[in-house]
Amino acid sequence: MAQLKVVPGGVTAPAGFLAAGAPAEIKKRHEGPGEPRKDMALIYSPTPCTAAATFTTNRVKAAPILVTREHLESGQGIQAVVVNSGNANACNGEQGLGDARKMAQLTASALGLDPRQVAVASTGVIGVPLPMDRIEAGIRALPARLSPTGGEAAARAIMTTDTVKKEIAVEFAIEGVTARVGAIAKGSGMIHPNMATMLAFITTDVNISTEALAAALRASVDQSYNMVTVDGDTSTNDMVLIMANGKARNKQIAAGTPEYQAFCQALDLANQSLAKMIARDGEGATRLIEVRVQGAPTPEDARKAAIAVARSNLVKAAVFGRDANWGRILCALGYSGAEFDPDRVSLNLAGLPVVRGGRGIPFDEDAAFEALGRDEVVVEVDLGSGGLAKAGGSAGRNGASATAWGCDLTYDYVKINGSYRT
Amino acid sequence: MAQLKVVPGGVTAPAGFLAAGAPAEIKKRHEGPGEPRKDMALIYSPTPCTAAATFTTNRVKAAPILVTREHLESGQGIQAVVVNSGNANACNGEQGLGDARKMAQLTASALGLDPRQVAVASTGVIGVPLPMDRIEAGIRALPARLSPTGGEAAARAIMTTDTVKKEIAVEFAIEGVTARVGAIAKGSGMIHPNMATMLAFITTDVNISTEALAAALRASVDQSYNMVTVDGDTSTNDMVLIMANGKARNKQIAAGTPEYQAFCQALDLANQSLAKMIARDGEGATRLIEVRVQGAPTPEDARKAAIAVARSNLVKAAVFGRDANWGRILCALGYSGAEFDPDRVSLNLAGLPVVRGGRGIPFDEDAAFEALGRDEVVVEVDLGSGGLAKAGGSAGRNGASATAWGCDLTYDYVKINGSYRT
Repeated sequence: MAQLKVVPGGVTAPAGFLAAGAPAEIKKRHEGPGEPRKDMALIYSPTPCTAAATFTTNRVKAAPILVTREHLESGQGIQAVVVNSGNANACNGEQGLGDARKMAQLTASALGLDPRQVAVASTGVIGVPLPMDRIEAGIRALPARLSPTGGEAAARAIMTTDTVKKEIAVEFAIEGVTARVGAIAKGSGMIHPNMATMLAFITTDVNISTEALAAALRASVDQSYNMVTVDGDTSTNDMVLIMANGKARNKQIAAGTPEYQAFCQALDLANQSLAKMIARDGEGATRLIEVRVQGAPTPEDARKAAIAVARSNLVKAAVFGRDANWGRILCALGYSGAEFDPDRVSLNLAGLPVVRGGRGIPFDEDAAFEALGRDEVVVEVDLGSGGLAKAGGSAGRNGASATAWGCDLTYDYVKINGSYRT
Repeated sequence: MAQLKVVPGGVTAPAGFLAAGAPAEIKKRHEGPGEPRKDMALIYSPTPCTAAATFTTNRVKAAPILVTREHLESGQGIQAVVVNSGNANACNGEQGLGDARKMAQLTASALGLDPRQVAVASTGVIGVPLPMDRIEAGIRALPARLSPTGGEAAARAIMTTDTVKKEIAVEFAIEGVTARVGAIAKGSGMIHPNMATMLAFITTDVNISTEALAAALRASVDQSYNMVTVDGDTSTNDMVLIMANGKARNKQIAAGTPEYQAFCQALDLANQSLAKMIARDGEGATRLIEVRVQGAPTPEDARKAAIAVARSNLVKAAVFGRDANWGRILCALGYSGAEFDPDRVSLNLAGLPVVRGGRGIPFDEDAAFEALGRDEVVVEVDLGSGGLAKAGGSAGRNGASATAWGCDLTYDYVKINGSYRT
């Protein structure tokens, strides 16, 4: 294991990255007196970068997704990301596409870049055209605010119903040099595997090949953001983008090397930390649910099982009510699509053994009520079905494992989502 | 179209069926003063029946599911169904299986049947052994209560968190004779396609072959109970069972004949009526959501699209809040897995056109708020993608269609499910 150290600074922790946040009056709600809420962010590396991204799998893709994918595929190297919150610029037809392009163009002009070197992201209400006058004013204001300590401002500017900013940075050593990965994210409602209204922007100063960067990002996203579920809905706007500017001056990292592994560990720590922050900040949530599955025949079975439990409304409501209703967990495992033998399942709920061999065992209800009151509730599932692994499967003797994150379902979730737009 | 007429009587409307409900103190809650809540039901035909059933697809199957499937497959002909509510008899291992068998044996003895002629169903809490002393007392009490007007008592006895009893009967003419289909159902939480904690028992006095009966049931379930979603969870105990005793004295119905079609229409009306009652009675629900999809490339695409919209927590919460947030509907269509061109989607919400060609169009927000306050909110989706139908697909010129039913997501849903067991 590489030595990993969490450091402050978010996306501006890695060398050579600048960031900014600015208010542009796109979001309706204000934080009270003082400066209005920030709702535009800019992340920028004056040094050329290699970049990679993963995008929503929703068939309805917002304009910024289409434009950013096009820019990334142009191979010019993304050096800046401009983001607005408060409006998703989705389902706005040609006008939406034009507006997203314009956001890239204006940002490129301000920074002296080619528009194809700018990524664009939006999050917020669907189907309302962007207020381009305010967006333009925001883009004019951002460059002057760019700062090597601007990560936090950017983290705040991309929030929508998020109640806390989400940022992290990780430092690690690689071939004798110190390198960093920094990241910010937003997302609370509409979070579900395969990228929900979830935005994450990651910076790193390692020198890495485009192929290795893309592979590392894909693998890391599958074990972090794609394992978070808040309400099961997958949005039109999700994007995870990483930029690597090489300022750490390490020898270029290629996939499969020890240096690649070290980088992946740092990246996973950053992304999993943000994924947990997103789950914990699920709309209306009072506690984080972490579902750890082991003993599955394949990694895909483990993932399906973990996600189904974390996603179940009945499990989520039971955790809110501090009710050790393990039957709902077995039920969710049963319809998850994962292969397993129900008679071999073991289950610990918040540390208490509640099921062995597929059957309930006596437990202390008071202790369970107490344990379910904690900020973080861990559900440990052993499917006991590692032996079902198909020939050639990657599951070890104890089977494959996966971890998913979710949150409880509360009155406030309903309140927030019953009145988000009006 | 056959002439269909809704008549009173539920499962006892068809000739030759008797039913009963009795209190057995399995459910905790009482209705107040007077007789305690009924929680055991019996449906019985003294005349031999042909029977068919569909069962939960959950990998974790409750004991009564396993026992009833075994009895059905024995080919002895099911003539009685015994049901308890308040306890699901799921995840109870060998003891659960033994208890389910015992329920069938006791019922068979009381009625002079072979145990394999008795179906068993349970619904309620998972993982708690059945209180067999009380179950036995209930089974002793039921036969004396059997009555040709006992349908309603049976409908009440199978309720758990249901707030209303669910029964219907349909009369139709077939070859000059009058025939009937009667049905009762329960289910409010944990409802999702492929049979959620949803029980339905259907009786009919038509004379029909086992094959035709099974085919009719399967097709009807796919367009009724499998299109209802309350919270996305699919339970361990779901069962739809139909018994046909031939007392209408029609010539035996074979699949594919005009008489078969007439029977299917009556069956569909009964099942779809109950499906809507289940959706409307979703835990905590204040209104029914009906999602009608047309213009899909295939029936499967239409089904996926309709279910995804009806299932979306964000759509459900928006309907609760009377917020015409159509973006969430497009978003749900986008991740449904259905094939369609997002730029060709049209959408009417509660009668108001809100999307044409994939883009929002202006609408009167006040009228929308008003319309979304009705008991029944209809979402009409035209995917405009019938032309994408694969060669040989069954979609017509206007594409394939499907209808799904759901309900809004409310504070009370969370309340009910946060404290169900404790």
